[in-house]
Amino acid sequence: MAKPSKISGFPEWLPEQKIAEDRVIALVKNIYESFGFAPIETPAVELLSSLGSKGVIDKEIFTVQRLKAEEGDKAELGLHFDLTVPLARYVAQHDHELVFPFKRYQLQKVWRGDRPQKGRFREFYQFDIDIISRNDLPLSCDAEVVTVITLVMEALQFGAYTIRINNRKLLAGLYGALGLDEAARKAAIIAVDKILKIGRDGVSKELAKIEGISEAAITTILRSTEIQCSVSDLPQRVAELSIASPLIDEGVQELVTICALMPEKAREKIRIDVSLARGLDYYTGLIVETTLDKHPEFGSVISGGRYDDLASEFTDQKLPGVGVSIGLSRLMELAFTEKLLSTAKKTPTVALITVYNEAERPMLNEVAQELRESGVSTEVFYKSPKLGKQIEYAEAKGIRYVVFVDAATRQIQVKDITTKEQVAVPSIRAWADSIRTR
Amino acid sequence: MAKPSKISGFPEWLPEQKIAEDRVIALVKNIYESFGFAPIETPAVELLSSLGSKGVIDKEIFTVQRLKAEEGDKAELGLHFDLTVPLARYVAQHDHELVFPFKRYQLQKVWRGDRPQKGRFREFYQFDIDIISRNDLPLSCDAEVVTVITLVMEALQFGAYTIRINNRKLLAGLYGALGLDEAARKAAIIAVDKILKIGRDGVSKELAKIEGISEAAITTILRSTEIQCSVSDLPQRVAELSIASPLIDEGVQELVTICALMPEKAREKIRIDVSLARGLDYYTGLIVETTLDKHPEFGSVISGGRYDDLASEFTDQKLPGVGVSIGLSRLMELAFTEKLLSTAKKTPTVALITVYNEAERPMLNEVAQELRESGVSTEVFYKSPKLGKQIEYAEAKGIRYVVFVDAATRQIQVKDITTKEQVAVPSIRAWADSIRTR
Repeated sequence: MAKPSKISGFPEWLPEQKIAEDRVIALVKNIYESFGFAPIETPAVELLSSLGSKGVIDKEIFTVQRLKAEEGDKAELGLHFDLTVPLARYVAQHDHELVFPFKRYQLQKVWRGDRPQKGRFREFYQFDIDIISRNDLPLSCDAEVVTVITLVMEALQFGAYTIRINNRKLLAGLYGALGLDEAARKAAIIAVDKILKIGRDGVSKELAKIEGISEAAITTILRSTEIQCSVSDLPQRVAELSIASPLIDEGVQELVTICALMPEKAREKIRIDVSLARGLDYYTGLIVETTLDKHPEFGSVISGGRYDDLASEFTDQKLPGVGVSIGLSRLMELAFTEKLLSTAKKTPTVALITVYNEAERPMLNEVAQELRESGVSTEVFYKSPKLGKQIEYAEAKGIRYVVFVDAATRQIQVKDITTKEQVAVPSIRAWADSIRTR
Repeated sequence: MAKPSKISGFPEWLPEQKIAEDRVIALVKNIYESFGFAPIETPAVELLSSLGSKGVIDKEIFTVQRLKAEEGDKAELGLHFDLTVPLARYVAQHDHELVFPFKRYQLQKVWRGDRPQKGRFREFYQFDIDIISRNDLPLSCDAEVVTVITLVMEALQFGAYTIRINNRKLLAGLYGALGLDEAARKAAIIAVDKILKIGRDGVSKELAKIEGISEAAITTILRSTEIQCSVSDLPQRVAELSIASPLIDEGVQELVTICALMPEKAREKIRIDVSLARGLDYYTGLIVETTLDKHPEFGSVISGGRYDDLASEFTDQKLPGVGVSIGLSRLMELAFTEKLLSTAKKTPTVALITVYNEAERPMLNEVAQELRESGVSTEVFYKSPKLGKQIEYAEAKGIRYVVFVDAATRQIQVKDITTKEQVAVPSIRAWADSIRTR
């Protein structure tokens, strides 16, 4: 027998934290569903050959193998490291059973087969939405996905936030017009992506390493990263760079259109940021990141973008998509550490019925069931010790109401632990309604 | 590029099936929470040394290892194969942070590292509740857990069902009084547990293999399995076996007490069945199984029982518990195959707003947001083809209402796809309220 201990990188919440996480999940799910995103869930594992597509076999992957596998058997399965590869495989596999545009949300754990490192999660929740279409996908979908982000951030109430959007066509157009070839453009995107971490000077040094890049190009790229503005100022600010190309115009026009398609309340919350690059290879249009103003070091809370061809590894069909991901577990850890939400409740129980003596328990169980059916989560205390013990239990678990039932008259008194007020409750249903609206 | 295919034993639902599964989950979760069970979630992995406790290393386990592990590194982690071992480890580990009695529910995938076999799940959801106490746990908790089962089965509406309960003390008392030692009693429980599969004669043959068992003992054990009755008849029926011991009395008395503590509505749904044995080693009191009358071959939908000492592998503390588990994924597969629930909806969308031309889209997005804020999940069609195409999309996804907005007057008409009725909607909020109550 050994006292069990934490496995590094595999977070595990206490009940009060899980209750808080479930509140966040319900709130996000509610917004996703209000836009018609449907839930899917894929197995924890994919074939290693699927996970290794798009060259991401470099990712740290956990393999999965039967304990009783024969000596020398090669692992064929791995835990998924994101929800994008499973989505691509799912859409390609169930192609004929899905109705397009396919709008899905997916909340699942993902795993990174890293070495244990302090502060690094090897298991965490991602909470994604994507819209996948056949052949072409209008910008209305990009606008919808960004609108969803604004609603999620408003609902979370984690303080001031900034949603920044940019467009890969704009970046490719700018860098191309400055003479960078495809490989150089990719390297420039990776360099610019680090701007928050390494600063302008750092980016400048990284850019200088790109083969064949000119001093003038570096200067213009750095100037472009200063374009952080509202969408109405964007065309003018880009024009001031004094470089032009059809791809630049297309990128600017896409951003203008996406913003125009958003409801005004959402549009007001968006900033254009030409320094936003995002590292991942597969974005081809819109890119988006969201940061909490008080926690810039945390990085992006919700991010994503558009990709022209989701499932090219699995199907001949062209399946463009746009989507974003919430790194939920990391966000919850921040919320717990920074006390961004309440973890006062260790139980869903709202009312605790006290027990004077065991003979009353069957009657109290009937009262409890009436409360439950009125929408009030209710416990009958499991034993019948002194009342003080029972009230202590309610306090320890964050149960707000303690209920006393008179066995002879069945009259009910309720004490509110937060206000210390005690009142008579003539009707359970009326009382239930009154506390639900509080 | 290869068309992806199913990995045997890892079920994957279509969106309409996942929506149906989520409805079942919400319904069960709501009942669990109404009794004050709090959610917890444990990592997918445990140390292999933890999974191997209680001798269950014999179980088929999937090991988890970094793809980049060094040659010859031994796997240290495994995917959990149930939620009971993780619960035991969790309670022992977080001991001082939990308030007892600890009532938790847990909905997670579990994995069995079997060879691929037809019809056998290697990944599936379990949906468990348990009440864990320190030192002693009153029978009120057993009564509560069985009450919860009755409410879940009522809510599922999967047809007629039978909840059978028994008590391991009663079995141990009977078998002990018949001269069986501990090893023989265990063997007898395993034999009786097979009665639905192999019948009375099969059990008789299995019992005959037990060393030192008498003909008379076999006869009496078989007679005892015929005791299938209401709780009020139990004492008389057991007395008719003409064997007595304090443990028999204790088992009978526990069953009587548990039933007395249940609300009458729940008690009426329970049958005592002395042929119920359950294979698992760790039960020490109440045992319970639930079957669908039309699908006996499916086995138990919800089952569990009481165990005296949950976490003896992890702590010196005595932690008795009582709980049950729903094998959710298997149940959903049955529900899909037997059409026990509707899978008509491929989306949470309730209303589809049609688009005549793209210029109207921003205005339609505002109407959509008003509908969403009134609680109606709403999509604006992503393009603006002929109306017929848009209505086809609603029909294909199971979206009930198609909405037409007059751009000039902003007047709204709604067509109900199921009734073909089309009506004018003067107030979005009033209409939203009216369809929510339908």
